[in-house]
Amino acid sequence: MPEVVRVASTIGRAGRERQARVMLSFLAEPGDPALGALLRACTPAEIVAAVSSGREPRAVLPGGGRGTGGLARAFARWRARLGQLPSPEQLAGWQREGMRLVCPGEPEWPTRLDDLGDARPVVLWAQGSADLRFACLRSVSVVGARAATGYGQHVAAEMAAALAERGWCVISGGAYGIDASAHRGALGAEGVTVAVLASGLRYGYPKGHHELFAAIAGQGVMISEWPPDRAPSRPGFLVRNRVIAALSCGTVMVEAALRSGALSTARHARDISRPLMAVPGPVTSRQSEGCHEVIREWGAVLVTRAQDVIENVSPAGEGLAPRRRGPACSRDTLDEETTAVLEAIPARGGAGTAAIAITAGVDLSTAIRCLGALAAAGFIERCPRGWRVRKNT
Amino acid sequence: MPEVVRVASTIGRAGRERQARVMLSFLAEPGDPALGALLRACTPAEIVAAVSSGREPRAVLPGGGRGTGGLARAFARWRARLGQLPSPEQLAGWQREGMRLVCPGEPEWPTRLDDLGDARPVVLWAQGSADLRFACLRSVSVVGARAATGYGQHVAAEMAAALAERGWCVISGGAYGIDASAHRGALGAEGVTVAVLASGLRYGYPKGHHELFAAIAGQGVMISEWPPDRAPSRPGFLVRNRVIAALSCGTVMVEAALRSGALSTARHARDISRPLMAVPGPVTSRQSEGCHEVIREWGAVLVTRAQDVIENVSPAGEGLAPRRRGPACSRDTLDEETTAVLEAIPARGGAGTAAIAITAGVDLSTAIRCLGALAAAGFIERCPRGWRVRKNT
Repeated sequence: MPEVVRVASTIGRAGRERQARVMLSFLAEPGDPALGALLRACTPAEIVAAVSSGREPRAVLPGGGRGTGGLARAFARWRARLGQLPSPEQLAGWQREGMRLVCPGEPEWPTRLDDLGDARPVVLWAQGSADLRFACLRSVSVVGARAATGYGQHVAAEMAAALAERGWCVISGGAYGIDASAHRGALGAEGVTVAVLASGLRYGYPKGHHELFAAIAGQGVMISEWPPDRAPSRPGFLVRNRVIAALSCGTVMVEAALRSGALSTARHARDISRPLMAVPGPVTSRQSEGCHEVIREWGAVLVTRAQDVIENVSPAGEGLAPRRRGPACSRDTLDEETTAVLEAIPARGGAGTAAIAITAGVDLSTAIRCLGALAAAGFIERCPRGWRVRKNT
Repeated sequence: MPEVVRVASTIGRAGRERQARVMLSFLAEPGDPALGALLRACTPAEIVAAVSSGREPRAVLPGGGRGTGGLARAFARWRARLGQLPSPEQLAGWQREGMRLVCPGEPEWPTRLDDLGDARPVVLWAQGSADLRFACLRSVSVVGARAATGYGQHVAAEMAAALAERGWCVISGGAYGIDASAHRGALGAEGVTVAVLASGLRYGYPKGHHELFAAIAGQGVMISEWPPDRAPSRPGFLVRNRVIAALSCGTVMVEAALRSGALSTARHARDISRPLMAVPGPVTSRQSEGCHEVIREWGAVLVTRAQDVIENVSPAGEGLAPRRRGPACSRDTLDEETTAVLEAIPARGGAGTAAIAITAGVDLSTAIRCLGALAAAGFIERCPRGWRVRKNT
């Protein structure tokens, strides 16, 4: 597969697994159970090689793909898409537009997604200034119905803003209604927010949120499991919801009718034992029925404000104080820009992001990204004035 | 104490205990812990005799009132009121106005009150057409704040009406706000409702509910632990709330701010392990904060409609079907009017209350009362047309 290798090499740091994961993300639908099961037994490169070979799965897979059923049908599905692999030029173009790939095991990969087991995404496409892994470290998913009431939108925005003000990242699905209010609330409080789309990032569904998505990319990060130009499909929304549930420390359902898709996010959160919370509303409102249902029947915790949410997602006993520990790696391993940003942070009192960027001589979005990486690695921490160096480093 | 005996003999069926309980209800405040403790060791008549004697409590009480502290102070309180005992004429007048006494162990006494232990009321004054014991058999307490919103009043009225339509009695405190909406909802659905006042029944606090109280007496029953003319006191409301919680199968809090008195009813329900439920509301409303608090912190069940409430107060496995069992006593023990009412009920198909009253030759309120007693004793049951004789009698 010289073409495959050539394509993958344009994406950034190469490596056989990363190349193969990119290919698989074009061939298989996210959440494809056959692929998830297969990845337990085989490497991505082995699977791509087997699919490309045109032969019987069991004949070409190491160990015959043991323990994975329905393989012939899965291979047929994936092979039908071999002709749709992107050209190297397309991949390079997406990269120039600011899209990057994040694969399992890489520095920006949010390790919470590994709790999804076989349903773990094969790759994530990301776009935006924030470091995805760091953003998700202290994060809450705020979800709800598109058909939201003024009450629900108000509560979602207020709660997201209050979470952001306390240094919590708000994760949602970028949809109309509650999702948009949550993202906007976080943005308005100058917080970090993550939108998990059910379409490709360039396709950007819904189209009406073009400006909102640009704002999220500017201050947070947009992610998707689908290739950048892929349109959304109906089942894709439900598949996507498992990522919203798995990325964060807990999920809050703000407003949802009984058959709302937001219930699927709640179900995923419950299934992987993440704290599940819901905001009550008037019992006369159909838009709150789903919230009342999950409180009554699923044991979701009733929350009325950000403080309740934070108490529920913070490990018992830890409260809000971040756990102290040394940096995850040595200063020597940092790249030039990141080192400059680290050195731009005053030893005492802290500084704001813009001041740090000027001192370091980098642009604002580079500063934001480096700060995220430094915080994720344990070198720095948030403080009232912005960022400061951790005492124990 | 010839006066005491003469007074008590005007109240109805005499008996030393009943006489003494009437006296005690004029001497001690409801919920007086000294009296409750004393009633474990001594009979009411022994206590009245000791109080009237003017001597040291330990010298005149059987066993010296063993295990009861603070007796000297309690006796001083009670003796100070010996001069306020009502005249026989007053008692006869209250009786003519339709007030009756209900004492522990008597046929109309709601046995659930015995769960209050030492805090069990000494007597209850009752007024109204319904049989108190029968009304409470299938009953729900619907409580909440006086400072209720339109939302809360709407929900209370709807829920009470739906409970009444399903044959459940609605118990509340007769106050403005949620209480009044609950009583009115039950009355509007032609159901039975019980108001538990914190003043005497003649005093009828709040005065603005004069007409509501008359309607409740016409269709349900008004009760109070206080002598008929007694004005309410601030601590009396909290003391009264234990009766609201204990009378019913479970308590629903519809709307209450964080410091609402309705929370004391919820606390009593929890303390005696009665199902506690609460209706959620907008998190933007202070009037719902108490409800959200008891759901989150006290484990109250979130309910949104009457059906939820009924499921929560019905014994597990029993569902809504009333438990089948034979009558509690023989037909021979019934008085003349009750026997006439029982015989007026057709063997098949059932009949309405008015038709039964005409057939039996009694007035409507007598018919309602006899029907309640017959149902409580297991002779008859409700049916779509009104009342029918139980198959197994």
